[in-house]
Amino acid sequence: MSILIKNISYLDIKNEIIIENKDILIEENKIKKIGENLEINADTVIYGKNKLAVPSYVNSHTHLGMSMMRNYADDLDLNTWLNEKIWPFEAKLSDDDIYWSTMLSLVENIKSGTSAVCDMYYSMDRVAEAISQSGIRGVLTRGLMDVAGSGEERLEETRTLYKNYHNVSNGRVKIVPAPHAIYTCSTDYLKEIIKMSKEFDSVINIHVSETIKEVEDAKNNYKMTPVEYLDSIGMLDLKVIAAHCTHITESEIELVKNKDFYPVYNPSSNLKLASGFTPIDEMIKSGIKVAIGTDGSSSNNNQNMVEEIHIASIVNKAVKLDAEVVPAIEVLKMATINGSEAMGIDAGIIEEGKLADIQIYDLNSVNFTPRNNLISALCYSASSNDVLDLIVDGKLVMENRELLTLDEEYIKFMVNKKTKELLNR
Amino acid sequence: MSILIKNISYLDIKNEIIIENKDILIEENKIKKIGENLEINADTVIYGKNKLAVPSYVNSHTHLGMSMMRNYADDLDLNTWLNEKIWPFEAKLSDDDIYWSTMLSLVENIKSGTSAVCDMYYSMDRVAEAISQSGIRGVLTRGLMDVAGSGEERLEETRTLYKNYHNVSNGRVKIVPAPHAIYTCSTDYLKEIIKMSKEFDSVINIHVSETIKEVEDAKNNYKMTPVEYLDSIGMLDLKVIAAHCTHITESEIELVKNKDFYPVYNPSSNLKLASGFTPIDEMIKSGIKVAIGTDGSSSNNNQNMVEEIHIASIVNKAVKLDAEVVPAIEVLKMATINGSEAMGIDAGIIEEGKLADIQIYDLNSVNFTPRNNLISALCYSASSNDVLDLIVDGKLVMENRELLTLDEEYIKFMVNKKTKELLNR
Repeated sequence: MSILIKNISYLDIKNEIIIENKDILIEENKIKKIGENLEINADTVIYGKNKLAVPSYVNSHTHLGMSMMRNYADDLDLNTWLNEKIWPFEAKLSDDDIYWSTMLSLVENIKSGTSAVCDMYYSMDRVAEAISQSGIRGVLTRGLMDVAGSGEERLEETRTLYKNYHNVSNGRVKIVPAPHAIYTCSTDYLKEIIKMSKEFDSVINIHVSETIKEVEDAKNNYKMTPVEYLDSIGMLDLKVIAAHCTHITESEIELVKNKDFYPVYNPSSNLKLASGFTPIDEMIKSGIKVAIGTDGSSSNNNQNMVEEIHIASIVNKAVKLDAEVVPAIEVLKMATINGSEAMGIDAGIIEEGKLADIQIYDLNSVNFTPRNNLISALCYSASSNDVLDLIVDGKLVMENRELLTLDEEYIKFMVNKKTKELLNR
Repeated sequence: MSILIKNISYLDIKNEIIIENKDILIEENKIKKIGENLEINADTVIYGKNKLAVPSYVNSHTHLGMSMMRNYADDLDLNTWLNEKIWPFEAKLSDDDIYWSTMLSLVENIKSGTSAVCDMYYSMDRVAEAISQSGIRGVLTRGLMDVAGSGEERLEETRTLYKNYHNVSNGRVKIVPAPHAIYTCSTDYLKEIIKMSKEFDSVINIHVSETIKEVEDAKNNYKMTPVEYLDSIGMLDLKVIAAHCTHITESEIELVKNKDFYPVYNPSSNLKLASGFTPIDEMIKSGIKVAIGTDGSSSNNNQNMVEEIHIASIVNKAVKLDAEVVPAIEVLKMATINGSEAMGIDAGIIEEGKLADIQIYDLNSVNFTPRNNLISALCYSASSNDVLDLIVDGKLVMENRELLTLDEEYIKFMVNKKTKELLNR
């Protein structure tokens, strides 16, 4: 299988420039060659005139299975949201519901140029199936907690998942241990999970300092902040994908800045749930590689990475009262290189030898007219609708906004049907 | 001319509910009847199954003519942005450039369900032409200032505009006096403009308290805050559309809350230019009718009202650390009823007798799947791409995302061409 993209402009994210009029040859699942006038008979040819190739986005924190709860519980305080709406709904969710919710979320991720997701939820065998089918990549994590019992059972589930799904679909699926959060896991349990991560030689995925309450509780319970606590039990010796970090402190930033620690910024969710403003400028300036994610559709309320990038790029300027902070290119790095590195995917850059995970934007779109700074355009004016094609692992999964791996209409039909059934149960 | 929308759900914004399965009959430019199974031979029939009719949006503050500067100057502090980028670019802008920029902005406004804009810029005769052609409504204001001279000339321009364009195109075009801001107009000049507004029996449009600097300068120059100063010279006895009000104070809110004073919130622009967070919750709770706008594409960087609504609805929750504030319905009111009232348009509600300004959303979109709370969906998950049709003044201006009044491809071509020419001048 080969794809030749002819005469395209592309974002060289490392050098922070747009390179014009190149041919990009993809063979098997990698970028084989970038050059001029490549004379090759490829299986598929994409004409790149008036298009822009961009490393596809990496959604580093989400809960794909929650999309049936989209627009179901809004404008509510966190406790009412969780106790009265989300948990009672979740209690009724079947494996099948999670499968169809996941499929719907995957449709949205693909349609906003996303080639990889880091997902934490349950029924993860069904999620692994959905990821396999979608053609994109998933770092999949069964949320582990023991405060309400069934801790060992969940660990066992993770082992089974790992055995059955880790590295399937040409390595597109990875299984990773994921303690839900410090407030839902005992210290002993966290230590067991750390052991498991060492055994798997794997990154660990956890929610960290999402809310002020979480930080206050940690101080009360452990006389430490959440990140200090994670350090004290040895978790920070491993590579960590730390969702949110909304309330990470200056001294915690110092603590993690030279570690394998990847905070995942979730701007829409943090704003909508009133969690607060994440110190993105401070983390970037400390050299921390922040990634970015949508969070689940119950708090976002969609899976649109182009929107996340837009919001991330403007909100922080107002927080710091400084229009120069968190510039467009830094947000694009969060969504590409940093996310890829966090998830251990050798992509995020359009460069020979890298995995062929590429999205192609339509420069004829009104949002790219006139063609001034295209890096600005990707952050500040683009819409997910401007993404025409998505290539993942060397294969087209979307072509001219048509999904090639998933049946969008059927998925929407099934999600509407399943939601009605659930609400009647 | 008549349009019959059959069997549609619609947002009854006054009662804050979705009403299902109604027929909406539009005759001439008004909503004639809302009922069930209307047996009428209309000129056009729209089938409303799986669709949602919503009052079309009102973009209460923009600079349509600035879209050639989209993605031209970003991540810069306000002074560098203005002095080194925007003003030198503007110095080269021709009447024709402004016309094509305006046309491009109108394409975007229409494609995000917007039926009316309040626009402040120059070459407003060309803007009036563009508005007439587009089929939407414009309250058009020539930015008035005298600090750099030519104050009288600009007043004269406004008079000529008023004579030639006020109420043309079936009343879709209105001309209104608009002092640019207190820092670009002398007190005497502002008083002249107030006199003109009384003569025209017209609303007045002005930028107010956009930045901290503006507030500090007012305190230094007048020993008053900007709003107190406007009150002291009698402007607040008139109806005022006050763009931004980012730094409106508690006592200023008290001062204006029972006046004909409509602040216009511009979330993207205020965030991106690092102007700050506008006290939206406080204003809403004081009963002030806040409107909403995109501002120009040089600071936004697009004209997407659906995005503004989304950002407005989530940012304020984080500012107040309270997920219940600025709920979805309030933001939708800002974009419909409040904006219409500010601009003196008898629309913003789907109700018999009102002007027929209606947008129709596609409920089959992934963003509306599953169909939980549709009011939440409009704010939190919708994309402008979900707007299928736009009816303004009883006429379709967009049908199934195809523009009927403007040639989108030619406009994009012209804007690209004109921008290249300008940058080479």
